[in-house]
Amino acid sequence: MKRGVSQFWKPFENGANMIKFSQCVDSMRTSEIRDLMSIAMRPDIITFAGGMPNNDLFPVKEIDDIYNGLDDKTKKIGFQYGPTSGYPPLIESLKKYLRSKNLPVDTNEIIITSGSLQAINIITKLFVNPGDTVITENPCFIGGTSVFKSYQANIVSIPLDSDGIVISELKRAMEDEAKKAKLIYLSPYFHNPAGIVYSKKRKEELLKYLYGKEIILIEDDPYGELYFEDDYKELTIPMKTIQPEPVPICYVGSFSKILGPGLRLGWLLASPEIINKAQLAKQSMDACSSTFTQVLADQFLRKGKLEPYVERLRITYARRMKIMNDCLQKNMPSEAKWVVPKGGFYIWISLPQHVDALEILRKSMSRGAIFVIGKTFDPMGVKNNCLRLAFSHTPEDEIEKGVKIIAETLKELL
Amino acid sequence: MKRGVSQFWKPFENGANMIKFSQCVDSMRTSEIRDLMSIAMRPDIITFAGGMPNNDLFPVKEIDDIYNGLDDKTKKIGFQYGPTSGYPPLIESLKKYLRSKNLPVDTNEIIITSGSLQAINIITKLFVNPGDTVITENPCFIGGTSVFKSYQANIVSIPLDSDGIVISELKRAMEDEAKKAKLIYLSPYFHNPAGIVYSKKRKEELLKYLYGKEIILIEDDPYGELYFEDDYKELTIPMKTIQPEPVPICYVGSFSKILGPGLRLGWLLASPEIINKAQLAKQSMDACSSTFTQVLADQFLRKGKLEPYVERLRITYARRMKIMNDCLQKNMPSEAKWVVPKGGFYIWISLPQHVDALEILRKSMSRGAIFVIGKTFDPMGVKNNCLRLAFSHTPEDEIEKGVKIIAETLKELL
Repeated sequence: MKRGVSQFWKPFENGANMIKFSQCVDSMRTSEIRDLMSIAMRPDIITFAGGMPNNDLFPVKEIDDIYNGLDDKTKKIGFQYGPTSGYPPLIESLKKYLRSKNLPVDTNEIIITSGSLQAINIITKLFVNPGDTVITENPCFIGGTSVFKSYQANIVSIPLDSDGIVISELKRAMEDEAKKAKLIYLSPYFHNPAGIVYSKKRKEELLKYLYGKEIILIEDDPYGELYFEDDYKELTIPMKTIQPEPVPICYVGSFSKILGPGLRLGWLLASPEIINKAQLAKQSMDACSSTFTQVLADQFLRKGKLEPYVERLRITYARRMKIMNDCLQKNMPSEAKWVVPKGGFYIWISLPQHVDALEILRKSMSRGAIFVIGKTFDPMGVKNNCLRLAFSHTPEDEIEKGVKIIAETLKELL
Repeated sequence: MKRGVSQFWKPFENGANMIKFSQCVDSMRTSEIRDLMSIAMRPDIITFAGGMPNNDLFPVKEIDDIYNGLDDKTKKIGFQYGPTSGYPPLIESLKKYLRSKNLPVDTNEIIITSGSLQAINIITKLFVNPGDTVITENPCFIGGTSVFKSYQANIVSIPLDSDGIVISELKRAMEDEAKKAKLIYLSPYFHNPAGIVYSKKRKEELLKYLYGKEIILIEDDPYGELYFEDDYKELTIPMKTIQPEPVPICYVGSFSKILGPGLRLGWLLASPEIINKAQLAKQSMDACSSTFTQVLADQFLRKGKLEPYVERLRITYARRMKIMNDCLQKNMPSEAKWVVPKGGFYIWISLPQHVDALEILRKSMSRGAIFVIGKTFDPMGVKNNCLRLAFSHTPEDEIEKGVKIIAETLKELL
């Protein structure tokens, strides 16, 4: 065929001039975290950059047992398409799990998504027209920012303090440039990157203020299970547990931090009306999430393997956080401020306004330690006087060495 | 917290009035195939409805061997995030596979997607603004239609004959209502639902006509491996193999029909410029496809398990098609016309214009056999004088019985 057809035309310049991308492509930007990953993979570099679990913590043995315990019929189901809303046994076992947290699984419905990012994407597709306003925190999870930008949303970001979103700033924005906001996107539990957890009081103030307003609240909760002391557990009670809802809440969760991101499984718990439309949206995105990994996740929940595994993670991450925090306290200059995390993956270090984290990163990288610079998490891509240090991924014996490199660099540049 | 917060507001009517969906939600419609699936699952019904492989054909033994042969390090990689473009070893083994088909893997690049549907979704996101025109075949794969509608595209569909898209109709449309079309979406190899394969001559005419036009061609090829005789193999040579390209071609493939849809893995082969933007788009969709299933798919290719497995599928599906075709020829009234498929999953039966497939379906269903009605595959949702019978999923001993039910029903209603 090659010769038969190509006689008809001359060599064709498949050049850039020819290809006209859609308007939303202009709004896409690459995640600096991802660009950094190629460096982060260099074996000689100590990295606090990747916001991911450590490979050595994954429950390989548990999944081995699960896989080898499956009968052929179930395995075959794993090879097949499943319902767009999710593999029914997984929805069942997930309901049981979420019910144990007092989440309203009987009046709401669940859709399984390809990671929680897809859940955020679906919600945005359902509610945001180009130019519509979305309210986020500042700093904000970069994945959320990239979703909202890909739908050409106008992002208005509101500062966080150690207790959560600053209500006075939220009020000011919602009376002004964010008056007609469609969505407010929050990560209240062990925030990425800020490392904080919302106080009970702040959640109450927030919901009281949002009550009755025409806005949808996305409550993103990938890290809530990873509290470092039992006393902190009550801080992770989702706002979605409050019934009736003061404002429609889309509660988003994920298996990425409590089983493995490679399975690409998350979920959305929302009203039947929203889930119905979410199914339509997902039908044209990927038809269904991997049935193969859903079968494994179902068994992981069903066989009671989640709780002992997560308990192991809590202890491990708490220990890593303590090593990092102790070392920061010993070595960091007094200008560096941070909130000691009560859970999750991150310590977020704030520096005086004039400091440029990129300069610190460049020098620190040349000495063998990296992190993610603040402006990655500023939806405006400007504010850059902060550093995100993830302690989740770094071997314990490297944490001290890496923190010292960053602290030394910082002292020189301040 | 429940009591502490809920005192602030009265019961809240979380009603439909409150929730304002975005404009694109209006363009979404549920797939009638999916709605039918709940019926199709009733054990007493013979179904030709689902366009899916039969569960008993999946390579369970091969994947068992692969899984149990993985070392712990590789398994852990499967639990972790991977690059947005795909698990590098899978891209490598996929390149080898596609190179064996003369596809231009060295001048183009690959992105692994969550099923080929996501590849179509990404391409549409990259090129289609709301109101832009997309040209499709008529009939057209419902997944493609649902993607284009979800981006508020204006779909212009062009009839197929037994050799492919009707060029005179395409010309007429492209000189008129489809003058500024951004995309043309084609499934030339064992079409879903039409069951045809494009002739070499038709492909040549098509490319000659498209040469130099400002349009992107999506060449969707999920079924190309499933030819029923070796002589038909050359009919499946992709247009993408022609270099230089007469028009930019996005070549889309899938593991769904040659390994298992439950793994949710497809791919897009396109110019580096397009793949670069596709990565940005995918970053905000699901970050990456399941690394877990990518590890398995890589080994499936790498260990040479694909070719013997696909050879088994070709023989099985050819046999099922023959049983169905023989039975149709014996039982169908003369008004029913179809092209005997040379590969794939489907026989597409055309009836006189006035016939309503829904009426046939209703009666046939009450007698215990179902199929998918024609208008599901008409992007306008109107033309309904055709039936899609999938022979891929139905146990061989049921095909004859089911076809007879449909043929009897048809004779009564014609």
